[in-house]
Amino acid sequence: MAGSLPVSPLAPGRFPDLPEIAGAEFASAQAGVRYAGRTDVMLVRLAPGSGIAGVFTRSATRSAPVLDCQAKLAAAADPGAGAAIIVNSGNSNAFTGRAGDGSVAAICEAVSAAAGVPASRVFTASTGVIGERLPHDRITARVGELVAGLRADAISGAAAAIMTTDTFPKGAGAVVETPAGAIRIAGIAKGSGMIAPDMATMLVYIFTDAKIAAPLLQGVLSDLTGTTFNAITVDGDTSTSDSLMLAATGCGGAEVNDLADATGRAFTGALHGVMRDLAQQVVRDGEGATKFVEVCVTGAESDADARRVAMAIANSPLVKTAIAGEDPNWGRVVMAVGKSGAAADRDRLSIRFGDILVAENGWVAESYREAAGAAYMKLPELRISVDLGLGAAAFTAWTCDLTHGYISINADYRS
Amino acid sequence: MAGSLPVSPLAPGRFPDLPEIAGAEFASAQAGVRYAGRTDVMLVRLAPGSGIAGVFTRSATRSAPVLDCQAKLAAAADPGAGAAIIVNSGNSNAFTGRAGDGSVAAICEAVSAAAGVPASRVFTASTGVIGERLPHDRITARVGELVAGLRADAISGAAAAIMTTDTFPKGAGAVVETPAGAIRIAGIAKGSGMIAPDMATMLVYIFTDAKIAAPLLQGVLSDLTGTTFNAITVDGDTSTSDSLMLAATGCGGAEVNDLADATGRAFTGALHGVMRDLAQQVVRDGEGATKFVEVCVTGAESDADARRVAMAIANSPLVKTAIAGEDPNWGRVVMAVGKSGAAADRDRLSIRFGDILVAENGWVAESYREAAGAAYMKLPELRISVDLGLGAAAFTAWTCDLTHGYISINADYRS
Repeated sequence: MAGSLPVSPLAPGRFPDLPEIAGAEFASAQAGVRYAGRTDVMLVRLAPGSGIAGVFTRSATRSAPVLDCQAKLAAAADPGAGAAIIVNSGNSNAFTGRAGDGSVAAICEAVSAAAGVPASRVFTASTGVIGERLPHDRITARVGELVAGLRADAISGAAAAIMTTDTFPKGAGAVVETPAGAIRIAGIAKGSGMIAPDMATMLVYIFTDAKIAAPLLQGVLSDLTGTTFNAITVDGDTSTSDSLMLAATGCGGAEVNDLADATGRAFTGALHGVMRDLAQQVVRDGEGATKFVEVCVTGAESDADARRVAMAIANSPLVKTAIAGEDPNWGRVVMAVGKSGAAADRDRLSIRFGDILVAENGWVAESYREAAGAAYMKLPELRISVDLGLGAAAFTAWTCDLTHGYISINADYRS
Repeated sequence: MAGSLPVSPLAPGRFPDLPEIAGAEFASAQAGVRYAGRTDVMLVRLAPGSGIAGVFTRSATRSAPVLDCQAKLAAAADPGAGAAIIVNSGNSNAFTGRAGDGSVAAICEAVSAAAGVPASRVFTASTGVIGERLPHDRITARVGELVAGLRADAISGAAAAIMTTDTFPKGAGAVVETPAGAIRIAGIAKGSGMIAPDMATMLVYIFTDAKIAAPLLQGVLSDLTGTTFNAITVDGDTSTSDSLMLAATGCGGAEVNDLADATGRAFTGALHGVMRDLAQQVVRDGEGATKFVEVCVTGAESDADARRVAMAIANSPLVKTAIAGEDPNWGRVVMAVGKSGAAADRDRLSIRFGDILVAENGWVAESYREAAGAAYMKLPELRISVDLGLGAAAFTAWTCDLTHGYISINADYRS
């Protein structure tokens, strides 16, 4: 299945040129876990001293690799020994009982031996079908080849190796000048279905050459997740494998000690941009997507309400099918606002499609013409704005339309 | 659109023979609100003394008729004067500002004058497109014809008049013998999309000839809603017009004074059966549905957790597309359990498709054979059972599959 889908019409023109991150090396290989004729495993080796932060799915049935990563990050082993990340596609090693834990251990030990990194600092992830035993020997058999192939300029190959129903590899990067010197950031992501916003979603790996202590790194990662990966949805379903990791090698010279000073703010801003870019690329590769939709909610009583309304619209199958049908069906937006559970007042609500005022004062706007709404809906990138007129809180979410393509992909694909 | 869809493959063979309810008369007519060549308005007249109870959507953007019904039930006007219910399809009179309130008043006054019922006891509902002004003059022009046509045996015509994307009219009834005498119950419903379970959903009208005081009637209706209409889902979207009303005419001779005595229990049991039957018919007419699915959750720590897990499975687009594809993809059931937010333990969970044990002890069951699962999934009626192994709480929900038909209906239909 993977690789046989046509590339999303919303895909970027090409994989971006990402900055090399001193202290981070990448490799990928064909292990044949499930897919034939393509790479399906990637390895990253991180220099001694690298700080690592992670955000993971809160699913009660999360995968063996996720549980292992969480335990290792909590243990906070000495970063002086370096670290490694190994990820396979085709099998998620989720709901595989104790055998799943054994697979994780076998892979970590193989990487530890070959890459010279303690097993306590080897992080794994697996993505693909749930509930089938991971044939981990196919992966361990490739570890020597992977270590031998590690290169600083091979991140695009790593992005390709972790794809499942993705139709394009996803990457984003930044180089930001700070008082402490230049900081480089490069990240990759996979994900197009089972995308819901209740936590860090999907598999995402971001690298920087800045020097940042792990607690500071964890703080900024958790904070920025709320407005990036936790602000997107494809189908409201939540993966058992979602993992977002951020590694700071400290090999670039610049040191971030305080997120509030000029260096810290420059780094945070650049990281936020990279995270938002990757999150939006996941939506652009939403299963069956033909429209990219930004949902902007303003005027809410609270941040929680703003988020609730934005996600109710972004997750509504009726809103998403109307968008697929290029129907300016603002009544369904009203429905989604109503069902969200947030405070709302019919008579204070206003709705815009792009810059077109559609509804206000509890009814269709006098100036609104259906022909203008219909013409707007034909665009591939849309913005739906709702002002609740009650307060100052706001939230922006990103989603895609719900099409026949989503049904076709998911009525066939074993994920 | 309405009426042009093929009848759901899950539809009952024919509309049931419902018992006549003394004190309740029905009529329907063609008002041309939106649809041509079909009935689109129905009227019910209830005898003096009828008790009435209602449960309505909790949507913050609920329609003008819903707001009016809630105000009238709260005011608890003298039942001695009788009552009426008038419902149109094709336009929901939701998000229509003050003009919407005016339409409700105009319709209530017309019915009051023609049917000899105070306007404070005329209840309305409207279902169809949101945000377009209701042309209520087309309805008031038919009120005289409706009143003249009222008949005790015309409930099936009323069920047909309130259909929108429904492909069949929905009815259910019961005659139950009690110590106080026989009690007859007859109900009708409409609904096939924008069906979500956070409240009474859709339009449902149930009638009984028992004599029951309004507070008792309201209590039993609210109570039974939790395991019937609040236990179904088609698409997780919640209508702005959902209304469920129960009228007790008291014209049948039997009186219910205590829900806990033999008469009360017989009545409650029969009413529960009628409500569950109507709720399941709504799912059987789910937009694009080809499979009817019962989701049984047991062994939960709390009632809330049991419901949460059942609805997470029943609402998951990935579970529903797998069912459409006849794929025994139990990994997606695990995913839905995990994302539900309920307490769950991977290693205590068991999953069954029908009687087939699929997974237990945190992994696929040793006895499970994929061929058996695949054969089971070809059935039109399926049962997915999940035992959480943690406690004694249980919940059963009903849902349908998610197919290309749902996309086609909703990318075109203005609802």
